[in-house]
Amino acid sequence: MQPHDIERESFRIIRHELGAHHFTEQELSIVVRVIHATADFEFRDRIRFHPCAIVSGIEALRRGCAIVTDVQMVQAGIGDGMLSFLGGKMVCDIRHPDVRDASQQSGLTRSALALRRNAALIHQGIAAIGNAPTALLEMIRLVKEADIRPALIVGVPVGFVNAVESKDELLKLDVPYITSTGRKGGSTVAVAVINALLRMAKGDD
Amino acid sequence: MQPHDIERESFRIIRHELGAHHFTEQELSIVVRVIHATADFEFRDRIRFHPCAIVSGIEALRRGCAIVTDVQMVQAGIGDGMLSFLGGKMVCDIRHPDVRDASQQSGLTRSALALRRNAALIHQGIAAIGNAPTALLEMIRLVKEADIRPALIVGVPVGFVNAVESKDELLKLDVPYITSTGRKGGSTVAVAVINALLRMAKGDD
Repeated sequence: MQPHDIERESFRIIRHELGAHHFTEQELSIVVRVIHATADFEFRDRIRFHPCAIVSGIEALRRGCAIVTDVQMVQAGIGDGMLSFLGGKMVCDIRHPDVRDASQQSGLTRSALALRRNAALIHQGIAAIGNAPTALLEMIRLVKEADIRPALIVGVPVGFVNAVESKDELLKLDVPYITSTGRKGGSTVAVAVINALLRMAKGDD
Repeated sequence: MQPHDIERESFRIIRHELGAHHFTEQELSIVVRVIHATADFEFRDRIRFHPCAIVSGIEALRRGCAIVTDVQMVQAGIGDGMLSFLGGKMVCDIRHPDVRDASQQSGLTRSALALRRNAALIHQGIAAIGNAPTALLEMIRLVKEADIRPALIVGVPVGFVNAVESKDELLKLDVPYITSTGRKGGSTVAVAVINALLRMAKGDD
């Protein structure tokens, strides 16, 4: 089986097993890619889309916006070719020396500080948070207290401390978001969402 | 809560909710990190350890062996500091031009060819396969047909086409492996396993 055939067959199986759902065709493309990346059908019942999320995210990607992420793994998983085709770029400052120093001084996580450092890029750009609840809480603070207006927040941190709470807070914001309720999420989920949007922005899906 | 406290509290919750199990203390460290990375307790019943896996993996890491991966996301998630402290390195050739060309000519996936290209490093080193069933099938072929003897195969591809089958084949090999049965797996799972082993090799756990 050729690489493209494997992907096509996987998507066929997922759509078949997914059963009844209430997603739009664009939402479904994203949900299918998330399940493809995790083999976890629980995401069918967990993913939430703000009504403007997909339109706003695609528009921002077509403008060549920056995608600011909390961890290197998200950056590594995004399709370079599609992103540079659209003129965009990935930004992840978790290993920046200033972020490391500020984390040691403040006790805040490096992922949260990596977001804060790039607040200006997130304004009208995209934040993709795949790992750290603290980064999503900082993102929410930037919206509430610093008037940052992202085109899209992909907020899918994973974990046992503040992951549920941070995503519940995100659901209350009136900004375009895509999230998954509960503890589950992760870098591969964030990557699947962004890569699905990149395909739509490029016109492949 | 400080970053280290968040991790400690997460591990406490996971160990509490895990309930009865049959893992050794070292196996448990790995299982806890996998659940930490996925928030998915199904891995408790899915992870399989070859009897020599942990000893052989730690010994190889302490020798400063290479870790060859199928995708960039696994490479991005491994703790650089711990690996370079031990003298090891990550190798991922999925974006190498030779791999791209060979994939177009042969119809094999780039992840499988990225493994094949580094067979000599995998011999007595570590293969960490977090995404592509085709890469794990190629790894199994290298063991059977090319007499490659890895110190450890972390074989946790995810998916709907050949993920289950490739991991079932791995379970039949008499080489040190860590795997998860079923469809689930992924880059974050491979990273959690390797990072747990790195901590043990360094003496932190």
